[in-house]
Amino acid sequence: MAALPVTGESRHPLRFGVNYTPSGRWFHSWLDLDLSEVRRDLADIAELGVDHFRLFPLWPLIQPNRGLLRTSAIADVLAVIDAAAEFGLDVSVDLLQGHLSSFDFVPTWLTTWHQASVFTDLRARAGITHYAGALTEAVTDRDNVFAVTIGNEVNNLWPANPAEPEAVRVWVADLVEVITSAARGRLVCYSAFDDAWYSPGHPFQPREVVSAGDLSTVHSWVFNGTSRIDGPLGPATLSHAEYLIELAVAGAEDPDRKVWLQEIGVPEPDVPAEHAAEFVTRTLAPLVGNPALYGVTWWSSHDIDHSLLDFPAREYSLGLFDVDHRIKPAGRSFAEIVRTAKTQAPQQHSQVVDCPVNPVRDPGRRALIAPGSDFHAAWVRSRAAGPTRIRFPAAG
Amino acid sequence: MAALPVTGESRHPLRFGVNYTPSGRWFHSWLDLDLSEVRRDLADIAELGVDHFRLFPLWPLIQPNRGLLRTSAIADVLAVIDAAAEFGLDVSVDLLQGHLSSFDFVPTWLTTWHQASVFTDLRARAGITHYAGALTEAVTDRDNVFAVTIGNEVNNLWPANPAEPEAVRVWVADLVEVITSAARGRLVCYSAFDDAWYSPGHPFQPREVVSAGDLSTVHSWVFNGTSRIDGPLGPATLSHAEYLIELAVAGAEDPDRKVWLQEIGVPEPDVPAEHAAEFVTRTLAPLVGNPALYGVTWWSSHDIDHSLLDFPAREYSLGLFDVDHRIKPAGRSFAEIVRTAKTQAPQQHSQVVDCPVNPVRDPGRRALIAPGSDFHAAWVRSRAAGPTRIRFPAAG
Repeated sequence: MAALPVTGESRHPLRFGVNYTPSGRWFHSWLDLDLSEVRRDLADIAELGVDHFRLFPLWPLIQPNRGLLRTSAIADVLAVIDAAAEFGLDVSVDLLQGHLSSFDFVPTWLTTWHQASVFTDLRARAGITHYAGALTEAVTDRDNVFAVTIGNEVNNLWPANPAEPEAVRVWVADLVEVITSAARGRLVCYSAFDDAWYSPGHPFQPREVVSAGDLSTVHSWVFNGTSRIDGPLGPATLSHAEYLIELAVAGAEDPDRKVWLQEIGVPEPDVPAEHAAEFVTRTLAPLVGNPALYGVTWWSSHDIDHSLLDFPAREYSLGLFDVDHRIKPAGRSFAEIVRTAKTQAPQQHSQVVDCPVNPVRDPGRRALIAPGSDFHAAWVRSRAAGPTRIRFPAAG
Repeated sequence: MAALPVTGESRHPLRFGVNYTPSGRWFHSWLDLDLSEVRRDLADIAELGVDHFRLFPLWPLIQPNRGLLRTSAIADVLAVIDAAAEFGLDVSVDLLQGHLSSFDFVPTWLTTWHQASVFTDLRARAGITHYAGALTEAVTDRDNVFAVTIGNEVNNLWPANPAEPEAVRVWVADLVEVITSAARGRLVCYSAFDDAWYSPGHPFQPREVVSAGDLSTVHSWVFNGTSRIDGPLGPATLSHAEYLIELAVAGAEDPDRKVWLQEIGVPEPDVPAEHAAEFVTRTLAPLVGNPALYGVTWWSSHDIDHSLLDFPAREYSLGLFDVDHRIKPAGRSFAEIVRTAKTQAPQQHSQVVDCPVNPVRDPGRRALIAPGSDFHAAWVRSRAAGPTRIRFPAAG
């Protein structure tokens, strides 16, 4: 039997979604869950044409004591998931928040007098394992939950919680195992911000990104220094998400392992508001045809009200909608990408750039692939001529 | 006009109360306030014959973001105060928890990425001032609220939150001012654990104890080393609360300033369970006639369920009731003291012991009055013969 031709139609459809940031009271809204407010937000999200959102429970609200899992708080999470189903939306649940927009939510049984590293302390790990297994089991009872992630950028909990690379490896592997055994076949994911790829001393390494769980996730933020290379609409800035995708493709042993662009956003002042819509289009249009791509989940659904204090300035304006539910220009661009991506043919990657270092095997030399490195510049130049794979050196 | 004779009847009646520890889910019960459970607990408390309890809201639940005071969480606090009124109980509200039984509740806007000392950081102090004023104004709307304390043993938040003595002085003074201006004439208090009296390097000093707010509060815990001097029922152990009261009397410039024994408890293993009832009687009976005493508030109303993990072992069994609402022998002893104290004549302090140091003026030499010091031993010996005041050296 002849192989089917590779066409846009034969691929698993690309998933599109948003990271759900409640429009009122941010994630503190979990403390007084108002499902009518949630439904109003989800109506906005559905209007974009997306199929899913990422949902972020707050760990200390669900497990305020190591021995106490609040059934009411888990019921709240399920209520939002059920509301999502009313709008035809699937949900990916991140368990361990953990870190959100510069704030760390860590229960009191792991701070000050009970200070212990969430990554290495046996008591901490026992509590987290209990939490992760129970919450996974609860949420995967719902048909519209398609994925479970350990937690949002768990590497942001370091260095407040010390860990060495080997301990991180064990921590991630243990949690993937626990979650997988409870997840009823749903996707199991791990996420880290991009110091895992670029920062030589960072104990979270590319190894886990490209091997833990069922696919690789990448989070692209051009405030990591990339926007300083060539400005808000320069080629390095606009291709940064794709660069991370290609790094994840190159680093995976499994050639069929997919990559989920789980976070990408348009941060001020790196990208001024007047360029936001163009940033969205010119970042996403070149990568949605990438056959390695599983999906794109935009950060975030809604802005943060300025009555909430102490956020980094850029966090307030990342929404595709403002706090009054008005769609922003970036939101319109994103919806247009979602609409047109369905008919886009898969890309051919006819070019490849050889990388001088394999950051998976040699994380101490990660700086050689960071934005601004010679290699990064070479990839950006090649990408200008067309989709470009990355090839790491073979094992020596 | 002749002075009235000093009799038991002419004094303001001694207040008795308990520190309210919810019997179910400890203070995490704020997250799912169940007023029927609260009323069941308050019925226990009322059964002791006491007139009040101390109430401990959780700061991060009321102010999860510096700009967000949750009206629903404040309404919960008021609901418990109103339930107290149904049982004829008055309430003293501690604002800044802050620290409870080894756990620190500090909002995320002051931890890790937003780490700042609650005592010195201007942003932190602005947020705390806002919180303290608003919560004081809310709770003193209720007639049965008779006192507001800055927070439970706020010095337990050090050293996680650095502070020098002068900064502590300013912090306490500012909060007393803010609370007083919102408190509609209710008592305003400050509390610290006894390192403030005994530990030479501790930045929280006796000065604030004997001058801040409307009276002095002392918290007596014999696990501070006192019980090792002469065992669970030895004279140093049984008189430790009274010793702290006398230190506070001696240190106050105002000779009429009262002292509130705001916490005293019977901790295992320092005092084995079979001696708990006797510890209560023999600690309190000698001091309830002290004319300087404002009141006695026992720690605590209820035990902690062992399904809740990570507490220091002694914290589980400090209740006068167990988690199933059964009164314990210590509870019966306490109720008997409450009943009999009403008719007890005020003590005459015919003895005085001179102290070699004034810890208010000379906090660097506080070790000279700590349990086990020569001075402490001299006071304990004198107290065996009758109530004994302490005299600090005159200013030199």
